[in-house]
Amino acid sequence: MSHRFVFIGAGNLATHLAGVLKEKGFSIEQVYSRSEKSAKLLAEKLQTKYTTSIQNIFTDAVVYFVALKDSAFEEILTQINFQNKLLVHCSGSMPLACLEKYSENIGVFYPLQTFSKNRNIDFSEIPVFVEANSPENEKRLIQIAEKISGRVSVLNSEKRLNLHTSAVFACNFVNHFYTIAAEVLKSKEIPFEVLNPLILETARKVQELEPALAQTGPAVRFDENVISKHLETLQPYPEFQKLYRLVSESIYKFYQNR
Amino acid sequence: MSHRFVFIGAGNLATHLAGVLKEKGFSIEQVYSRSEKSAKLLAEKLQTKYTTSIQNIFTDAVVYFVALKDSAFEEILTQINFQNKLLVHCSGSMPLACLEKYSENIGVFYPLQTFSKNRNIDFSEIPVFVEANSPENEKRLIQIAEKISGRVSVLNSEKRLNLHTSAVFACNFVNHFYTIAAEVLKSKEIPFEVLNPLILETARKVQELEPALAQTGPAVRFDENVISKHLETLQPYPEFQKLYRLVSESIYKFYQNR
Repeated sequence: MSHRFVFIGAGNLATHLAGVLKEKGFSIEQVYSRSEKSAKLLAEKLQTKYTTSIQNIFTDAVVYFVALKDSAFEEILTQINFQNKLLVHCSGSMPLACLEKYSENIGVFYPLQTFSKNRNIDFSEIPVFVEANSPENEKRLIQIAEKISGRVSVLNSEKRLNLHTSAVFACNFVNHFYTIAAEVLKSKEIPFEVLNPLILETARKVQELEPALAQTGPAVRFDENVISKHLETLQPYPEFQKLYRLVSESIYKFYQNR
Repeated sequence: MSHRFVFIGAGNLATHLAGVLKEKGFSIEQVYSRSEKSAKLLAEKLQTKYTTSIQNIFTDAVVYFVALKDSAFEEILTQINFQNKLLVHCSGSMPLACLEKYSENIGVFYPLQTFSKNRNIDFSEIPVFVEANSPENEKRLIQIAEKISGRVSVLNSEKRLNLHTSAVFACNFVNHFYTIAAEVLKSKEIPFEVLNPLILETARKVQELEPALAQTGPAVRFDENVISKHLETLQPYPEFQKLYRLVSESIYKFYQNR
């Protein structure tokens, strides 16, 4: 395919996505980032060119991928003339329409995963959600997405935003609860790794079973004896106590209403 | 080994634990449960006897395993004469001392895992925490535990309670957040399984990385633009909105203080 891509942004998402696109035979012509360090690092990985100057962004790319944080879109994109090339962002919470003022050919390419440095991820399993402003652009994005993932769907901006909210609960908030667990254990000199099999099994269970059916623990029946003991152990952490109470109440109410 | 065990309780924990003990060559002589259905089902799995009558619990066992919910301990155990045989409970939040009035030989045998019906679990990976009222009893429990798990430690009641609190966050509360994610997706007709790779990767990441270092998402820097969009999507669920706010604030504060 004669797909020459430029990446605007060089963070974790850009690194993983550009990496797998190159692996699948696409040509990443250039990486732009404000940070010289990030731009250079990703360009070296991709064996391609980089720039930290908006004026030097190549004008002959076929697709521009925007992998910036949402709050940087406006400032950076207004400075680039995309000459109506296909301009695509990778954000869960930005609507497609936010790109309208920069090009006549726009789309969204949203891979649903948490990307960290130094972790290899099997991209073929990652759901990719695309959206575009015309059937032709949608088709191009589907073709690109299907080269890297076996799970490509079209999803509109409103649904994608809801999907992003759900991902914050299932990933960011979940990770915060791992963090709270780690704090509680640290105070008693218990290594966090004792929780590893429990954490994995909890995640594996819902791969097969509706999460509402997998719920166990004292909150389902609001076992006050156990709950009050747990709240006592959380006395050094008033904020975690508050979270414990609120989540327990939420669990209890959820199962009362079913 | 001449270990004849009786199981008091026939729920998920009893089913998994008795099953693996039998597999490793221990003899489960009898299962007691108030529920005929549960008692019979487990006894059939173990090819052993069962009773629903406390008076008929065998008196010649070598170890009695109590796998009841915490609130049922008192009512059931006061009716049994254990003749000072080794009496062991499997609860995360009950202290060892709660067994003192029932026998002179007491212990705790706590496998840290979430057990569900119809799910096979590799017991050898499950951390088992034991405690006993004498070095001899402790040694017996360690010997039993080491037959089924490669991860056996001695842990006192106070630390075990903290461990249990941390497990509620890392398992029960995490599962509730999977449930909330499922509710949000259901309202937009998006299948829950799109979150599967994200959920698994989030759990796998902390097997190698301290969870505080694995945190991503809008709450870390309190990205108000994204957060307010997410809160809007949660308008049909005022309670989930409240949780979203509180957890986001907790994440933000946590990283401000580091």
